[in-house]
Amino acid sequence: MSFGFKKKILRVNLENQKINKEENTEGFYRKYFGGRGLISYFLLRELEPNIDPLSSKNKLIFACGPVTGASVSGAGRHSVGAKSPLTGGYGESEAGGFWGTELKKAGYDAIIIEGRSEKPVYLWICDDTVEIRNASSLWGKQILQTQEIIQDETKSQSIRIASIGPGGEKLVRFASIIHDLRHVAGRGGMGAVMGSKNLKAVVVKGTGKVKIAKPKKLQTLAMWMVKNVDRLVHTLHTYGTGAAMDVYETTGNLPVNNFREGVFPSVDSISAQTIKKTVSVGMETCFACAVRCKKIVKVSDGRWKVDPVYGGPEYETLAAFGSNCGIDDLKVICKANELCQRYSLDTISTGVTISFAMECFENGLLTLAQTDGINLNFGNKKAMLKVIELIGQRKGIGDILAEGSKRASKILGSKTERFSVQVKGQEVPMHDPRLRRGQGLGYAVSPTGADHMHNIYDTMYSHNIPRDIEGLGILEPVPIDDLGPKKIRLFHYVSTWNSLDNSLCLCTFTPWSVRQKVAIVNYVTGWKTTAFELMKVSERATNLARLFNIREGFDRKDDVLPTRLLEPKVNGALSTSSIKAKDLEKAKDIYYKMIGWNKKGIPTSEKLMELDIA
Amino acid sequence: MSFGFKKKILRVNLENQKINKEENTEGFYRKYFGGRGLISYFLLRELEPNIDPLSSKNKLIFACGPVTGASVSGAGRHSVGAKSPLTGGYGESEAGGFWGTELKKAGYDAIIIEGRSEKPVYLWICDDTVEIRNASSLWGKQILQTQEIIQDETKSQSIRIASIGPGGEKLVRFASIIHDLRHVAGRGGMGAVMGSKNLKAVVVKGTGKVKIAKPKKLQTLAMWMVKNVDRLVHTLHTYGTGAAMDVYETTGNLPVNNFREGVFPSVDSISAQTIKKTVSVGMETCFACAVRCKKIVKVSDGRWKVDPVYGGPEYETLAAFGSNCGIDDLKVICKANELCQRYSLDTISTGVTISFAMECFENGLLTLAQTDGINLNFGNKKAMLKVIELIGQRKGIGDILAEGSKRASKILGSKTERFSVQVKGQEVPMHDPRLRRGQGLGYAVSPTGADHMHNIYDTMYSHNIPRDIEGLGILEPVPIDDLGPKKIRLFHYVSTWNSLDNSLCLCTFTPWSVRQKVAIVNYVTGWKTTAFELMKVSERATNLARLFNIREGFDRKDDVLPTRLLEPKVNGALSTSSIKAKDLEKAKDIYYKMIGWNKKGIPTSEKLMELDIA
Repeated sequence: MSFGFKKKILRVNLENQKINKEENTEGFYRKYFGGRGLISYFLLRELEPNIDPLSSKNKLIFACGPVTGASVSGAGRHSVGAKSPLTGGYGESEAGGFWGTELKKAGYDAIIIEGRSEKPVYLWICDDTVEIRNASSLWGKQILQTQEIIQDETKSQSIRIASIGPGGEKLVRFASIIHDLRHVAGRGGMGAVMGSKNLKAVVVKGTGKVKIAKPKKLQTLAMWMVKNVDRLVHTLHTYGTGAAMDVYETTGNLPVNNFREGVFPSVDSISAQTIKKTVSVGMETCFACAVRCKKIVKVSDGRWKVDPVYGGPEYETLAAFGSNCGIDDLKVICKANELCQRYSLDTISTGVTISFAMECFENGLLTLAQTDGINLNFGNKKAMLKVIELIGQRKGIGDILAEGSKRASKILGSKTERFSVQVKGQEVPMHDPRLRRGQGLGYAVSPTGADHMHNIYDTMYSHNIPRDIEGLGILEPVPIDDLGPKKIRLFHYVSTWNSLDNSLCLCTFTPWSVRQKVAIVNYVTGWKTTAFELMKVSERATNLARLFNIREGFDRKDDVLPTRLLEPKVNGALSTSSIKAKDLEKAKDIYYKMIGWNKKGIPTSEKLMELDIA
Repeated sequence: MSFGFKKKILRVNLENQKINKEENTEGFYRKYFGGRGLISYFLLRELEPNIDPLSSKNKLIFACGPVTGASVSGAGRHSVGAKSPLTGGYGESEAGGFWGTELKKAGYDAIIIEGRSEKPVYLWICDDTVEIRNASSLWGKQILQTQEIIQDETKSQSIRIASIGPGGEKLVRFASIIHDLRHVAGRGGMGAVMGSKNLKAVVVKGTGKVKIAKPKKLQTLAMWMVKNVDRLVHTLHTYGTGAAMDVYETTGNLPVNNFREGVFPSVDSISAQTIKKTVSVGMETCFACAVRCKKIVKVSDGRWKVDPVYGGPEYETLAAFGSNCGIDDLKVICKANELCQRYSLDTISTGVTISFAMECFENGLLTLAQTDGINLNFGNKKAMLKVIELIGQRKGIGDILAEGSKRASKILGSKTERFSVQVKGQEVPMHDPRLRRGQGLGYAVSPTGADHMHNIYDTMYSHNIPRDIEGLGILEPVPIDDLGPKKIRLFHYVSTWNSLDNSLCLCTFTPWSVRQKVAIVNYVTGWKTTAFELMKVSERATNLARLFNIREGFDRKDDVLPTRLLEPKVNGALSTSSIKAKDLEKAKDIYYKMIGWNKKGIPTSEKLMELDIA
């Protein structure tokens, strides 16, 4: 029996063109599950230390989880991993949509892509048939054109395509991988790794089924969510992400002008509510999901037309290209989002790298000569859109910024370093740790660099236990700006539980309770797992990722926040208080010891024994 | 709402006769649950350090758990705790039966008894009515007489009585507390603490109900066990404990002659199967339990008559007075068991203290003069029964042995120390750690001294995950005599899960799966707890008990096994190999660090923060 899992991993070597299908035991899958669990396992086991992430020695892994492709809300996800060209450490990014489900239907839990093809190729997978095909005609094409040509060549509309645009080809260090035009594995430069392998696309067609151990029970649970989704997540269901931006501005959570400021009076003009009223042409969904939180936007007139095939901006994108670049024109932000999809660029890193450049420019550390005459001031819409394209093409100033803000600051001079808002080289997302201090700890210790998917319960607003974390033992609220033992405990438990989603692979936005997630795994696999076992699966995966980073030379010294986030904002709610470096160090002391890492942030051998890691 | 819990704790001070009823929040109960959770919380918080356990400063706590009194198999249990006069550390013992359920029905989760009465008293609890009553007429009486007098005096048969016999009154350091003639809180000398307070009995009558949040779901689960109990635990259900003694003898698990030997050819004559065929008059049950594992034996003729009102011997008793004292006469063992109930003595400590004395005697370290002419050789039935009575009366050699084997060896001279088979002063149960090495670690680190309820999965015999621990993440079998990292991990997870039973309070012998136990808690309380939260509840309780011991001066140096258990047996399966002291030290190094204790075995402040212990 192999419910949930296919027990088959596809291994493709682009160098010698060897294609293997590898099987593992049920016990293997129960230990590592999928997503981060599989990726961290294989990267740690198979990569040589200290390789160049853009060399042929890197491996690119697409991994589904046990629930990928199960007909239940949130289960349309998979992860993509490799050594990150942005951070030099563990790289992993998740995407929703339909691609992962298709891979499972084709009969595989994961694909491990090795080596580098001499010429551009794409991978064609149709059930048992796996071919490395010529992609010369695709090279240089944007995402939509790439899809159209492949559909034409394969004479099939019912295929799922993971592909890169020029950003990936040109090795932009934060290039993303786009699935079916708008489902993005955005962070950490997985698109650049794909580009470095001369791999334009991974095309999947699957005719099989994902076998479910208890289909009726799963269906009952799925229907429960359909009936309750509006009650549970009305705002997300109605507007998608980005409907709380006014609150974020008031409280100080919203980055303004490269995280420097806290006041953005026209915040309402770039919110998800305004999208709904203006540029929205509806909401779409990932596979089998009742939440339907994916915005689709269309701008058909004016200076910036936006093609709805590329979806619409999430909150992260709205803030990164909006308030964070001093821009309050929604259509410009939608265009920026569309350009990132066309070129396959991560919107967070792109936005924050541009805001970095804007602050450098305003401080005279980036000159008109360097920008080829572009006035890169905060708020310059045209300049921002132009620079996105330059990054995607690695032209002019874009060639420097394509390196990410950390490397760019090294090129532009040490005075620019304090404008580079990143952790381990990955740009900081749109939740300000000066307000959310648990989130700050999360940014600092995340194996992928700054990552916002760790700690959504940085605070709790009432004495009721939130339904989606009931059962984790968090019984009391902790203030949002606290970073003491109770917050660290909350972060440890909640971030471990949330990170599990990256191994399942299940969407964090679907409001399943702890018990419901456990039930989903059991209904899919036929196991009798528990929240305890799942917490350990998550811990195991994150410790493997940590070990990968340790081997690459990372340790405690790298678990830090950038200078900018340790200073108060120049105005707004957080202009008088901030997270402090010494408080973060204290928090690390406690957190490391609490989770079984030594003072340098290295997992103790006893912790590894406890997680059954040899 | 207060499903499961009564949210009321009764506090009775025998010194000033004050009676208080204290309320706590739902959050308090969710954090500490009951049993060990409550006992360790109150003992650590309220006892002065370094008090004499038999002084008025000790407190005796009877504590139910959330599931006590719920109509489901295994839920008829409660715990009794105090500073132990046997170990000088955290003392706690559990009992089945009906008493705990009655206390819940009377409206209380726990009773905290403080101070010392000047004269013998008993406590009368009938719902809201709580009285400290004169027990002068009861003092000196055995258990049955005590019960009859109280029933007469209160004109009630439908009461539940926790009482002590002469053993408790005489402060035998391993005196037990007997509930309703045959449900025993045996270990750690809780009966002596009760005796030191001049408290003869705690009599309870409750007319209320235990409110269940989801009674229909609970009933469905209860009925499932009724239907499946024979399939799941056929042997236990049919014979009670003690049906595997032949295997235990073959493998070396069975103690013979004070743990010295491994061969006991007539093992079959003292097994539960033989009881079934000979002295059994049926099987009885605890409250609401389908397992019905309680033997009732009767011997109405011959030299040793055994009164069936006192129940029958468990495996621990069969071995402690049987093979461990070189005795293969079942009726004698049944009589020994009955005597222990009459006098309120722990059968394990009594048996092992007598086997200690027998070995001393055979080695000339205990003389006929000291025994008043009793030939205390291994196998001397009459002598054994006589000495039990002497212990219960603290007469002659019994007065020395009533101190337990550790203190007795100090009295009898240092040469006798190697015959004292105890950890922290508490005698070792009937599972030999030379075979079961995880069990050995368990004996060493248990807060109560040697205790056998920690680690029933010292090995797993197949590659299937046993149903009752599926969901704890143990995926592979570990050899029984292994004490490496995999065994330590298994011990950590399984012992934490098993110890939870002491906080729930649920019987470890009921074959509920991990998921079913979680469901029971949720159906009873209306919470949505998980195995993760429950593991943390268990860890919290055990860490509180550990902190209590640390305050009393215990640390790593006390987490050891007695010399006898570090030597091979003189014959039988374990005559060539044994657990070694240095292997145990290595295992402690790993175990301590794995569970968040420092090298001295003290919980780190970060561990306490993680468990939300202030």
